[in-house]
Amino acid sequence: MASIIPLETPRRKAANALDDLTGLVADDLQAVNEVILQRMQSPVALIPQLAGHLIASGGKRLRPMLTLACAKMCGYEGTRQRKLAACIEFIHAATLLHDDVVDESALRRGAPSANTLFGNKPSVLVGDFLFSRAFQMMVEDGSLEVLRILSSAVGILSEGEVMQLMTSNNTQTSEQAYLEVIRAKTAELFSAACRVAAVLAERPTAEADALRTFGLNLGLAFQIIDDVLDYSAEQARLGKTIGDDFREGKITLPVILAYNRGNEDERRFWRRTLEQQDQKEGDLQQAILFLAKTGALKDAAERARHYGAIARDALGLFKPQPVKEALLGVVDFTLEREY
Amino acid sequence: MASIIPLETPRRKAANALDDLTGLVADDLQAVNEVILQRMQSPVALIPQLAGHLIASGGKRLRPMLTLACAKMCGYEGTRQRKLAACIEFIHAATLLHDDVVDESALRRGAPSANTLFGNKPSVLVGDFLFSRAFQMMVEDGSLEVLRILSSAVGILSEGEVMQLMTSNNTQTSEQAYLEVIRAKTAELFSAACRVAAVLAERPTAEADALRTFGLNLGLAFQIIDDVLDYSAEQARLGKTIGDDFREGKITLPVILAYNRGNEDERRFWRRTLEQQDQKEGDLQQAILFLAKTGALKDAAERARHYGAIARDALGLFKPQPVKEALLGVVDFTLEREY
Repeated sequence: MASIIPLETPRRKAANALDDLTGLVADDLQAVNEVILQRMQSPVALIPQLAGHLIASGGKRLRPMLTLACAKMCGYEGTRQRKLAACIEFIHAATLLHDDVVDESALRRGAPSANTLFGNKPSVLVGDFLFSRAFQMMVEDGSLEVLRILSSAVGILSEGEVMQLMTSNNTQTSEQAYLEVIRAKTAELFSAACRVAAVLAERPTAEADALRTFGLNLGLAFQIIDDVLDYSAEQARLGKTIGDDFREGKITLPVILAYNRGNEDERRFWRRTLEQQDQKEGDLQQAILFLAKTGALKDAAERARHYGAIARDALGLFKPQPVKEALLGVVDFTLEREY
Repeated sequence: MASIIPLETPRRKAANALDDLTGLVADDLQAVNEVILQRMQSPVALIPQLAGHLIASGGKRLRPMLTLACAKMCGYEGTRQRKLAACIEFIHAATLLHDDVVDESALRRGAPSANTLFGNKPSVLVGDFLFSRAFQMMVEDGSLEVLRILSSAVGILSEGEVMQLMTSNNTQTSEQAYLEVIRAKTAELFSAACRVAAVLAERPTAEADALRTFGLNLGLAFQIIDDVLDYSAEQARLGKTIGDDFREGKITLPVILAYNRGNEDERRFWRRTLEQQDQKEGDLQQAILFLAKTGALKDAAERARHYGAIARDALGLFKPQPVKEALLGVVDFTLEREY
């Protein structure tokens, strides 16, 4: 636990950072996967079927891993973090299910989304099941402090989803309004996932606050890069779906920068495609050209690096140790995903 | 508080029962309405707009009133029941919002439903907001026992909604399966609304259990009568919308009885209209005739009376007092709504 790592050790390549973290919390992560499988069961067969489609299909389990890793970094030696990590994944999964209904997105992680396969109706209701199951698990944990942190995060998250809806298709959305949306809908859950670890370990307020800061800023960076990747030619080359946000008329940071920097022709283009949702063949390619020309993708990524730097510094309070290095690696990974 | 009412007092006409109850908890109810208005606020303007459309449009506030009345009957003298009653109404409203999305029902309480006015997308997300706000309010209340009761009720409720979906359009649904659905989706929240009152008042387990029994059985009776009313000629005469369940292919108790008692022609009719959803002009009238011919509506109401009787007896533990009389009156009101 107290193994000293020289501060100047070059960090492992970002691409390996998630593997490093996974390795360090492997036992916990497997326990979390078991809790997830066990607690999504229901005598109502459709529930595990549909939830399993989403949750078993994996994803990176980034949020639960943050809880596990932060608990380890705080020196917590119990097992409560496992149930709470599972509960955070349930909240995230519920959001995805409701978001899929809402956005009519046909693909999620490259596979058909739950609502394409099962219909909107079951997706809403199984999302509700996962939300309520998550709350039951928090109540079982029994800490009012943890309940306060997580229920507040879920509240903000749902406000963020509605805020996003209201900025949708509005090309005049400001960068500040965008930041408020992604903070609410993404960063607050990251933040809560990290912060609860300090509560479990009964660490001083300063450390709880450092973890809150870490999670929040990592979440902001993560979402900005996610929004950049949706226009990434490199992603397209790797066979990933791009252009979802464009097709839905979502106003993300790259678009905000390109709109503000664009000439009248370019603004007309953004208004037609995103506001009036009048899109034709080749428009996505055109959008990517405008984004490149105005430096919007590059500078959005630059903005993400700012939040990444805050996240990194927030861990300064914690003594050097492998799990801290791995968490710093996650920041790098978040920023350096291919785009 | 201790005013003695002779046991043999004839109960007021059922139609007045809700007014009686409202009168007895008037101050609390006004406080609940204020909490509702205050806690559905959000800087995100669409949230109070949409939530207000549903919650301000009223309804009977039956569930919160049960909490208020049971708290009074238990001799509770604090004010925690107000926030919890508001929170139960939020849970109920969230369910309605998600149910509207799901069932594409165009009308709710005779007025255009939130999702007709605002679209499916906001309805799902504002429902999520109300759910999470309800949880935040429970956490603020601070009792883990209350949290356990209510979070478990919400969990069961969401399972019930999915169960209902799976019996939908299946004319072979058994009466037992129907009972399990309405218990989960309706009766458990009624039950929780009553039971928490005993917890607030720190009453013995026997009284908490009596209130649980009262709420559960009142909820079953309420839902069965609701399902009967959807085929009621009298409701139609009063200008209320009927036939929603029929159009959606919901398999409710009247249909289950009529199908089981029907001849081959009648069963073919139910399969065509509810299973294959192949409906034409005049089918609703035909359905009502078959329901009358088989005695299905009358006997479904009879089943409801059975649960009403259990609810009534559950209050035997409590000493005679006006609020108890009013709660017994609510059972009568529930059973004797026009059909």
